[in-house]
This record gives sequence, structure tokens and C-alpha cells, in this order.
Amino acid sequence: MTQNGGLKSFSTNMSPPSKAIVYERHGSPDYVTRVVELPPVEVRENDVCVRMIAAPINPSDINQIEGVYPVRPSVPAIGGLEGVGEVYTVGPRVKSLSPGDWVIPSPLSSGTWQTYVVKEESAWHRIDKRCPIEYAATITVNPLTALRMLEDFVDLKPGDSVVQNGATSMVGQCIIQLARLRGIYSINIIRDRDGSDEAKEKLKALGADYVFSESQLNVKNFKSLLGNTPEPTLGFNCVGGNAASLVLKTLREGGTMVTYGAMSKKPITASTSSFIFKDISLRGFWLHKWMNLEKVKECRKMVDYLIGLARDGKLKYETELVPFEDFASAFDKALGKRGSHPKQVLRF
Amino acid sequence: MTQNGGLKSFSTNMSPPSKAIVYERHGSPDYVTRVVELPPVEVRENDVCVRMIAAPINPSDINQIEGVYPVRPSVPAIGGLEGVGEVYTVGPRVKSLSPGDWVIPSPLSSGTWQTYVVKEESAWHRIDKRCPIEYAATITVNPLTALRMLEDFVDLKPGDSVVQNGATSMVGQCIIQLARLRGIYSINIIRDRDGSDEAKEKLKALGADYVFSESQLNVKNFKSLLGNTPEPTLGFNCVGGNAASLVLKTLREGGTMVTYGAMSKKPITASTSSFIFKDISLRGFWLHKWMNLEKVKECRKMVDYLIGLARDGKLKYETELVPFEDFASAFDKALGKRGSHPKQVLRF
Repeated sequence: MTQNGGLKSFSTNMSPPSKAIVYERHGSPDYVTRVVELPPVEVRENDVCVRMIAAPINPSDINQIEGVYPVRPSVPAIGGLEGVGEVYTVGPRVKSLSPGDWVIPSPLSSGTWQTYVVKEESAWHRIDKRCPIEYAATITVNPLTALRMLEDFVDLKPGDSVVQNGATSMVGQCIIQLARLRGIYSINIIRDRDGSDEAKEKLKALGADYVFSESQLNVKNFKSLLGNTPEPTLGFNCVGGNAASLVLKTLREGGTMVTYGAMSKKPITASTSSFIFKDISLRGFWLHKWMNLEKVKECRKMVDYLIGLARDGKLKYETELVPFEDFASAFDKALGKRGSHPKQVLRF
Repeated sequence: MTQNGGLKSFSTNMSPPSKAIVYERHGSPDYVTRVVELPPVEVRENDVCVRMIAAPINPSDINQIEGVYPVRPSVPAIGGLEGVGEVYTVGPRVKSLSPGDWVIPSPLSSGTWQTYVVKEESAWHRIDKRCPIEYAATITVNPLTALRMLEDFVDLKPGDSVVQNGATSMVGQCIIQLARLRGIYSINIIRDRDGSDEAKEKLKALGADYVFSESQLNVKNFKSLLGNTPEPTLGFNCVGGNAASLVLKTLREGGTMVTYGAMSKKPITASTSSFIFKDISLRGFWLHKWMNLEKVKECRKMVDYLIGLARDGKLKYETELVPFEDFASAFDKALGKRGSHPKQVLRF
């Protein structure tokens, strides 16, 4: 696996030197991050050294660098929470993994934006190598959030429906497909913007039953738009503001809205009567909290399920592979500086 | 029991004529209500005719008359949902009730604002006559709401705490006392207004552990005000607006806020991060929904518990008994036209 014979001159219990995207203070990623060459580190007897293949730039990565995430790493820190890599070397007591295996950190652990990562065997989960790398690199943060939110709040049955805003987001795309696989209708809300017709067609191609722009639902008789589809018992909000209000008004009596994102940076406003008389519940979901160590087994089982769907072409979403060297332009795109772009995935 | 021998001239299976507060259209109670003399009605074999003793004017009564309540009676209708009365006559197949018993409609049923009410035996629940009439007349709508909200959302243990706004309301006063009886601390929020010091002392006399005006909590270091009291897991909101935000910010991670009223008529606004990272849940409570027929037994058991507390002086709240003839002034007070007044209870 070594591309550079020189690496062999290190002791076998040392990793190769690594290139990492590091931030030494909190701030906007395009200002505070830089590539640092890190010296070899020891691969102890239970450790596995992984050569990273690909790792995405997620909003939570950006927020961590900005220092506005509730989990604030001490600096200097290496960015990245998920990704996929190939086992490079293993410590002498490692049993379950061998060089050449594909692995992901599971549960998520920080520091995936580097060429070589050394962590204990227990931190890694081997995955099916038939899964395309852009999916393997991104299977946890967004698809697992979609899966958990469909499972954890309401007991959905085939024929039920869900409603969501921010439907073009990666979680949104996953919800559409995972709902469809369960026989659950999805009602999807997107922003009013140029190209929204194209966005609607894309979501419908993924299996969306209904896609509305916000203005289409901002009408009194919106229920007539939904035909015979049952009113949704569960809604997802990653936007806030008016887009959250639209999810709330679409929910049926006794329904639950789960908030997992804040794209508009606007709060959620709900009438008192929606709680008292419509019996609406508002909840929140944060994968980081769910994914505590007690959930490792459950988490990996679900990751395997999602990896299998991606491998078989049953779970699709757009990503853009960007060479590691071009990380600065990937940040610009991830920060929205160049308009709308697919999820940026660094290719090492 | 008859104050008027003339009533005896009616057949024994007819009620006496009744005076009722009736509204023939929806609108403000002081405009649309009037006293109507109703002719005798048949007391069928399973019916019980009750001479009403007292019945309160609750906000939900007013909203029903206004036509803004989700349950909109068809007009003309008799006002009132709760109250206490004395059994006057019973039909021949009635087994459980006898003339002279004190009864309340349980579950709640409409039409208590009249001098004689005829309903089936199963609609009435006999209560302990040692309970003062102003408590017997008001035990269901407000005290039962307080009790259910303490029981139904979070598994509270002695030493836990709850937070509420609108603490001077009747439900608020009941929450303070029912919490105290369970060894649960109460943190209470009231409006900034003239006389708030006096209101604080009154609530403390009922057992409130902390009473703050809104402005006292509108500070960054509000946690220091609570000493070693554990952060509340459960909060109650009957106000909305800023007062609801204060409940939310006082709650601990994973806490639940239950909305049961809308005194400010302002909506509830919450940040997305309070859902995602603080894991707050927002719920609602509506006694009307809870009190469906399946809950009759449970409901009556709890009413008996509350009646017992009131009888023993362990549950107190302010009421003002007003002669039935003066109902117009009672409406004015209940509508807040003459400043702040205790709960108005019509005395027949």
C-alpha cells in the first residue's frame, strides 16, 4: 500500500508521517485551517493504522472549527468526524482487522481529515468494500440521522406519511428513500428559488411523493394538495422559521416535529393552541448524543444496513469528490460561498 | 329540599322549572348571555335531578361562549362545565344516589349554570359533603389539570423540581401545593406588576420554594438564584411569549415544557439548539381530551383525592362566591374588566 518506499524505513510499530487539516484557533474554516505534516506516531499493540481514502465536510465539522458547536474541541485539532479508509498496518494484538480492509470510525470520532489515522482496533468498523467510497465516507452522519429519526419518535406503519422541510439536504434525500422502502409517504418542502422545479424532479426521482415550495404550502387550503394521503404523524425540521411552521401546520393532531438542523438560523415559533388543542409535540435529535458508547453495536448494525443499501443503489445522494490538495475550494463550496453544491468529500 | 311548595304540584317525574344562563349566539359573555326560565323537564327512570349549589366561571366557559374554543356548542346553549349540586329527585331505577347527596358532573359536562340540572345517574359523582362548596364547585377543571400535568409527562421523584409561569393562576397555586405534598420543589414565575411582592408572599405561604418576577429571571446568571435546587425536569406554561421562554431556559437538559394556557395570547418561540443540543421537549395538555369516557373511573378517583385535600385544608386557592343574580358583575370580573379578581363562583 505504500506509495513511497521511504516510509518503510520507519519502525514497523510507527505510522507513516501524515498530512492533516488542522485548526489552531476557532474561526471560519477558510481562515483558520491549514495542512500540517505530522510526524509518525506509535502503532501500539491494540492499534490500527488506517490510510484514509475519503472524508466529507459536514456542517457539524464547520461548526466545530468555528467554535459554535456544543462540543468544542481543544485546539490545535484535526478536523473531520467521519470518513472511510483502508487498514495499513495493525498492532500485534489486533484480531478482527487486517491490512487492506476498509473501515470507518464507528461511532464517529474526530480527526478524519488526515492521510493516516491511528486509533484502537475497537474504534474501527469494517465495511463492505463493494460500497462506493463516496457513500462509505458519508454513511454515518447524515444517513444514520435519517434512519434514527424515522425509527425513534413515532411508530410508523406502511401507509403512514411524514413531512419534512430542507428536503434537498442529504438527510432529507435519505428520509425520502428510507421512508419509501418502508411504504411510508413523504411530503417534502423546499425553498422558493431559481431551479426549484429541477430540485423537485430530482427528489421525485428519489421517491418523493410530494414536493412543494414554501409558497405553495403558504395557503389556507393546503390540505387539498395532499389528496388522500393521510396527514403526517411525524415531521422533520432542519430549517426553522416559516419552514418549521409549515411542517407544524401539515402535521396531524397528536403529531411530532423533530428538529435536527437550523439552516435559516431562525427560531421555531408555535401557537399555544397547537400544543393544547392539536396536541403537537416538539422534540429534537442530535446524533452525537444518541451515539454514545452503549450504542456501538446498534450503530454498526444500522451502518451495515445503510452501506448495503448504498452498495445496491437503493440509497442515493449527491456528493462531489475533491482532491485533498484542493480542500480550500471544497471549504468555499461547503460554506456556500459559491452557490449550491453537493456534499464535498475530500479524496486523499 | 324544596324552598317552594308550589314545585310539588309538578308530576314527580318532572324537574322543577329552572333558571339558566343561556347564550343564543357566540360573542362576548356580557353581551350574549341572559337568564332564561326553562320549563320542567322529564326525570326519566335512570335520571337524577340536581339542584345546583355553585358553579365557577372558567376561561374555557368564556371561550366556549365566544365561540373560539375548539369545542363549539351549538346555540342556544347553557353555559358552565363544572359545579356542585345537591340531588333533588331521582328516577325509579337510580341506585347509587339519593336526595340530599352532593354531586358533581364527572367527567365534566356542559350546562352547569342553571338552578336545576337533569342528567343520567352515570353523569354524576357523589362527593364528600365536608368539602367547602367553593372547592367542591371548582375541583375538576383546575386542580385536576395541575394533578394530571404533574403525573403524566415526567416521572418526578421527591427532591426534583418543577418550574412554572402564571403561578398565581388557580392551576399554578394547585401545582405549588401538590408538588410540595410530593416533596418536589417549585420555581414560580409571575408578571412584573404592582402588588407582585404581595403575590410572592401569598404563593410562598402556599408552599412555593421560589417566586420570581419575569424581570428577575431575565438575567444571565439566573442559575445562581436557585442555590442547590436541582434544575427542573418539568415546566408548565400558561402564558406564552417571554414567560414561556423563561420556563424553557430554566429547564435542565432533556426537560419537558407542557403548555396548558395562553394568557398573553403570544406564541411560544424556541431556538433550534434548545431542541437539538438541550434535548428539550414541548408538549401540551388539555383536560378535555384527557377526560374521555374511558377515564371516568380514574378521573373520579383523583377528584376524590383532591376533594379530600380541600376538605382537610391541604389544598387552598382563592375564590369569590357571587350570587347567581349578580352573574353580570361576575362576568365582568372573570373577563378582567375590573382588574385582578379571584375565581368567580356563582352561588345559586
